[in-house]
Amino acid sequence: MADASLAALSATEAAAEMALGTISAEDYTRACLERIAAVEGEVHAFIHLDPDYAIAQARALDERRRNGQPIDPLHGVAVAIKDIFDTADYPTECGSPLLKGRRPVRDCTAVARLRAAGAVIIGKSVTTEFAYFHPGATRNPHDPERTPGGSSSGSAAAVAAGMVPLAIGSQTNGSVIRPASFCGVYGVKPTHGTISRHGALILSMALDHVGVFARSLADCALILDVLAGYDAEDPDSRPSASPAFRATVAQKPPSPPRLAFVRTPVWDKADAEARAAFESFAISLGGAVRLIDLPEPFAAAWADQRVIMYTDMAHNFGALVERGGDASSKQLRDLVAEGSRNSALRYLAARDGALRYRAGLADILKDYDAILTPSAPGVAPKGAATGNPAFNTLWTLAGLPAVSLPLLKGEGGMPIGVQLVGAFGDDARLLRTANWLAAIAARA
Amino acid sequence: MADASLAALSATEAAAEMALGTISAEDYTRACLERIAAVEGEVHAFIHLDPDYAIAQARALDERRRNGQPIDPLHGVAVAIKDIFDTADYPTECGSPLLKGRRPVRDCTAVARLRAAGAVIIGKSVTTEFAYFHPGATRNPHDPERTPGGSSSGSAAAVAAGMVPLAIGSQTNGSVIRPASFCGVYGVKPTHGTISRHGALILSMALDHVGVFARSLADCALILDVLAGYDAEDPDSRPSASPAFRATVAQKPPSPPRLAFVRTPVWDKADAEARAAFESFAISLGGAVRLIDLPEPFAAAWADQRVIMYTDMAHNFGALVERGGDASSKQLRDLVAEGSRNSALRYLAARDGALRYRAGLADILKDYDAILTPSAPGVAPKGAATGNPAFNTLWTLAGLPAVSLPLLKGEGGMPIGVQLVGAFGDDARLLRTANWLAAIAARA
Repeated sequence: MADASLAALSATEAAAEMALGTISAEDYTRACLERIAAVEGEVHAFIHLDPDYAIAQARALDERRRNGQPIDPLHGVAVAIKDIFDTADYPTECGSPLLKGRRPVRDCTAVARLRAAGAVIIGKSVTTEFAYFHPGATRNPHDPERTPGGSSSGSAAAVAAGMVPLAIGSQTNGSVIRPASFCGVYGVKPTHGTISRHGALILSMALDHVGVFARSLADCALILDVLAGYDAEDPDSRPSASPAFRATVAQKPPSPPRLAFVRTPVWDKADAEARAAFESFAISLGGAVRLIDLPEPFAAAWADQRVIMYTDMAHNFGALVERGGDASSKQLRDLVAEGSRNSALRYLAARDGALRYRAGLADILKDYDAILTPSAPGVAPKGAATGNPAFNTLWTLAGLPAVSLPLLKGEGGMPIGVQLVGAFGDDARLLRTANWLAAIAARA
Repeated sequence: MADASLAALSATEAAAEMALGTISAEDYTRACLERIAAVEGEVHAFIHLDPDYAIAQARALDERRRNGQPIDPLHGVAVAIKDIFDTADYPTECGSPLLKGRRPVRDCTAVARLRAAGAVIIGKSVTTEFAYFHPGATRNPHDPERTPGGSSSGSAAAVAAGMVPLAIGSQTNGSVIRPASFCGVYGVKPTHGTISRHGALILSMALDHVGVFARSLADCALILDVLAGYDAEDPDSRPSASPAFRATVAQKPPSPPRLAFVRTPVWDKADAEARAAFESFAISLGGAVRLIDLPEPFAAAWADQRVIMYTDMAHNFGALVERGGDASSKQLRDLVAEGSRNSALRYLAARDGALRYRAGLADILKDYDAILTPSAPGVAPKGAATGNPAFNTLWTLAGLPAVSLPLLKGEGGMPIGVQLVGAFGDDARLLRTANWLAAIAARA
């Protein structure tokens, strides 16, 4: 019987203890596996999990430490991997019966970086079908009648349920920020191109982002420093210096941060309770926040995102879905049919639109440290549907970095996330601003 | 009366003389202007030319030299600019009545780099309508009944007629290599993204390349070193070191170059005379050349290029052309109509095709220094039509660097170009291989 308190450690604490040798990677991993065994029957966060293999990884890391080899930043830390990221050990099935039993030959870049940093790849977490809407088996750890959100359902739930301190997911529309909000954990989706998507399921090169889940911003910074970096295999990767997340996150902002409270054109999609919670939260921040409205042209962003996402998904796996017939959900087949009907000119106009929104938001963010906006329209809904990503669409389309902070509560004590959106490429500063906001909220 | 022999100097010679001060930039510019005045009535290479303004630039450069300021690599050298590149001094009308009188506010990146390197921007050269097929007034300097080729018609003709030693053009399909072949000059189209297109007319970001014309490879290298370089404003620009063209072009190859003679699936579009000239030229090179056939999937490249080019042109200026009605040629209006009909999936499949052709050609070019293939289907045809770019399509679509060398003669002594195509990003080596080939041809 492992010490149950180990599984509750933050990733930063666990990594520090294992680096010092005060706990072994094996003991820590066993504690995580026992926590998983205790709650997995209710949460269903994992689709592929092999406790013996996880322990074997941990033992190899302990051996490495005994041999005097260098200790890496995630040494021994358990990480859950959304099942759209190729792994050489576990199958990668992308939540689709069409890919049942698929076994990739090698790790994707993100998993390879985690492994090289000493992480224990504990298992593959549940994704919705092809990281789109049709849900998997995962339930919300705060209330099993509710969705954990999607598409990174298992990753958000595993972190929220204390199974692992860290998990990775992906976001094409709202698949990191929305489940982070519903599950009451921190979620970060860095700037487009910051983390390589090489070897991950590609829905849309223009829209796909890799993101992370953790129970603190310090832990987000720890894993982001490992994941962020140039990869020539990802066409949107930028050969610039990686953001210094850990070095920046806890810094005191050099001047008091200013936030733009943006309700967006989809404000009426938020429920009354969430709108009220947001408005009183914004008011509680006083002079740090200013309410601004987006100029009218931004209203077309939601339609543009749909054209790009549906077309690119039809391009990337429409033929597979069509061949598979009823094996795919009606939702996915309808998406492929709609995406296949778009004209090239409509598609290119939407791609141009994305660049215009990015430029327009850059203008706004010259005057603010971040945009403050809901992570989701309210608490996690009951039933299987994974919820509405409308509050994530614009920022994802524009490629801006976003964080969800679990700062508010709604119906039945369920969490509501506060979203901060930063300037393109200014990821570390966004985390610093988020840390400042979390500290203010903790004092309130 | 200027010394007429000055206009006949190579750019390298002229730059060296002006750097030493043995000739002034003003005298040199006057000589070029007199040569232009003597032959422009027959050739029609320029659409905008202001002799007083050209002389004013030259005088400023002479003044700069007298003041002891640093002498730049193109100090005083006259360069003609295809009228699709924005210039702050001359209008930029892109060969279309729809843009008559258009005056840009600033220079495009390419012109700004030339100016910063000391060039005299002598005037704007004739382009076909929107750099597509509908011809301008330029005639072939070797035979006024024949086309100079297009779309960089005036740039190729101005260099061939001895008006200027250097000119810049652009190639979306065959608009540098084909006119270079027809006019009997050297033309170079470097790897996609090597020279910035910021501030130039964009037909298709995926296909557009900036290229150069000169009467020697050394002169091509001189201007390419000035033009090549990273520009954050061009999304396809690569932040890598520029090729060292001048340092490499005249080097002896470290081992005897090997050429792959590729006839391409459009070989039957070449006329019998050109096919015979090519085959005997290839045979004359003996063991350095091996005939290879492209695998069957390459045959789809021509259709893919058409989808990308027509769609992107319809996207970039279809609305302008449609509003302009009869002011545009039927050819251009038909292109816009066809491009507007393509589906997004067909377009994305064509874009994927381009990457596959690039990868396939990279495999072939592992074993060869360059591909040897015709620059055009034969000599410049009579009449207004600018000729067939079929021998340029594949390499342009794949983004590979290409050179046309004026080594063969056909009907009526008209020039036929020999095209060499290099590996993606291996531009300087391609120029070195071309220089080796030109030396062999000169000895034969």
